[in-house]
Amino acid sequence: MRIGLDMMGGDYAPQEAVKGVKLFLETVATKAHLVLLGDEQAIAPLLAAAQIPASDYTIVHAPQVIGMHEHPTKALKEKQQSSIAIGFHLLQNGKIDAFISAGNTGAMMVGTFYSIKSIEGVQRPTISTPVPREDGSFGLLLDVGINSDCKPENLVQFAILGSLYAKHILKRDNPTVGLLNIGEEEGKGNLLAQATYPLLKEHPQLNFTGNIEGRHIFSNKADVIVCEGFTGNVVLKMAESFHEIAVKRNIRDEYLDRFNFETYGGTPVLGVSQPVIIGHGISEAAAFKNMITLAQQMIESKLLEKIKESFNGKQS
Amino acid sequence: MRIGLDMMGGDYAPQEAVKGVKLFLETVATKAHLVLLGDEQAIAPLLAAAQIPASDYTIVHAPQVIGMHEHPTKALKEKQQSSIAIGFHLLQNGKIDAFISAGNTGAMMVGTFYSIKSIEGVQRPTISTPVPREDGSFGLLLDVGINSDCKPENLVQFAILGSLYAKHILKRDNPTVGLLNIGEEEGKGNLLAQATYPLLKEHPQLNFTGNIEGRHIFSNKADVIVCEGFTGNVVLKMAESFHEIAVKRNIRDEYLDRFNFETYGGTPVLGVSQPVIIGHGISEAAAFKNMITLAQQMIESKLLEKIKESFNGKQS
Repeated sequence: MRIGLDMMGGDYAPQEAVKGVKLFLETVATKAHLVLLGDEQAIAPLLAAAQIPASDYTIVHAPQVIGMHEHPTKALKEKQQSSIAIGFHLLQNGKIDAFISAGNTGAMMVGTFYSIKSIEGVQRPTISTPVPREDGSFGLLLDVGINSDCKPENLVQFAILGSLYAKHILKRDNPTVGLLNIGEEEGKGNLLAQATYPLLKEHPQLNFTGNIEGRHIFSNKADVIVCEGFTGNVVLKMAESFHEIAVKRNIRDEYLDRFNFETYGGTPVLGVSQPVIIGHGISEAAAFKNMITLAQQMIESKLLEKIKESFNGKQS
Repeated sequence: MRIGLDMMGGDYAPQEAVKGVKLFLETVATKAHLVLLGDEQAIAPLLAAAQIPASDYTIVHAPQVIGMHEHPTKALKEKQQSSIAIGFHLLQNGKIDAFISAGNTGAMMVGTFYSIKSIEGVQRPTISTPVPREDGSFGLLLDVGINSDCKPENLVQFAILGSLYAKHILKRDNPTVGLLNIGEEEGKGNLLAQATYPLLKEHPQLNFTGNIEGRHIFSNKADVIVCEGFTGNVVLKMAESFHEIAVKRNIRDEYLDRFNFETYGGTPVLGVSQPVIIGHGISEAAAFKNMITLAQQMIESKLLEKIKESFNGKQS
């Protein structure tokens, strides 16, 4: 298993990426072989200084870097020797089994959609966020930003993708699915929610539990909560802001600490045919470690094969 | 000035409503005359026991009560002698200058839309929530639930209504308006947000500041934030849940205390031709007091006249 990691992506790269690699290799039992992409002259000395065993990684030299604020499409096209462009190239050609970057999010999106195919039957790949719950577990909310206008069928597909993720990665048996909505009863909500409810309810593959209001997002009412990416993104960023407020106001609380979404690492793009994980720009060592671990879990659990089986070419 | 208050509405009525009346009369300098609607036998002794001067109020006997879980349209139609039905009747006939209830929200909505006209030019009346900000001030977010599917022009009208409210009630000079969105730059967002942005930007009556992301709702970036009622309702209920989490976890913080939306009382329905304030079901004394005070401010500031002037029969 070969996991590709962009060493130049993120505000604290490459230092924190190096620390993350070390942390991963030290704490995770079954080790993947890491393919580290970046400026060799910059990263090789750091990896050596961190005493990371040379047998655990291969450096692939990428002399260019796509900056965090560059125009995604333009940058990807013009910087063919960037770590992101090379990463997708390696993934496309089967040289790596997953690709991770905390770099320019737009470039990661464009790279994913241009070089990695959607799984047959998936209309819209999606991104998600873990939802910290009061009992210590995590739920999953999706979409959180790449599909801001959706049809009911898109939300049904997010529910299937989220359920498979919850089952195989979060190890949740028969995960429950909720529809983010503005009332509890069937028939409530905007046109999208009203039309989506019966589709979720009647879907044989889904364990649908009904509507989830804003006040129950952090409860255990549903393992997977689906919505279009506009509301999902507002929810995610608002939850992040609560963590920032807590930090600023010196509120120390174990549960609120879990709203520090940066530590989770990143979000896989669900619905594409190879594992791509897009990291938070301000990723630190733990985030890099978590992203590598997640990539490994996605490969080991054969999540993408399960998704392919589930969609099986159906246009559902 | 005569303000009508439903004494039977809300989970803690009539006791907390009586306490709220007392609090209002004790702490607010210019007193409105209160028209108290409810079962006279139930409320008269409570008002007397609370030593509320009889000259400050008039009881209007309403023998029926619409329960919190009754079907709004059905209940309003069948219970013509309920406090809510009588309240709207009095408001319609100019016997009171404002009507307040913390009772069945649906019945209050139905009553408002059936008996009180929209202001000419207003396509969709709206409800809002105060947004507690870190500097101690309040912003305003609207719509928060009655308009879950919107057109761009609706959001523009919410912006005008919100700006007038911010100016005349929150006493904000030239209030800034932001568009809730999932990116900072123009062109970001779903189709609705993309189409709304230029309309807000070019509107001569609005002080538009651009997009507001989920992480900046509680900042000072905009005095008034507009969105459709689906996202707005999710945001409001999620903010409420943060307060509940803080209480449950024994987190004591002055700022988080301000997320106790119940204390604010209720939301006026903006865009209708008479002041109607819909209270939170679990309103306590302070909430009732705040709602009466708000009704008085709305009347004194001539907010509805300002809204009428602003729309002036125009269709946008």
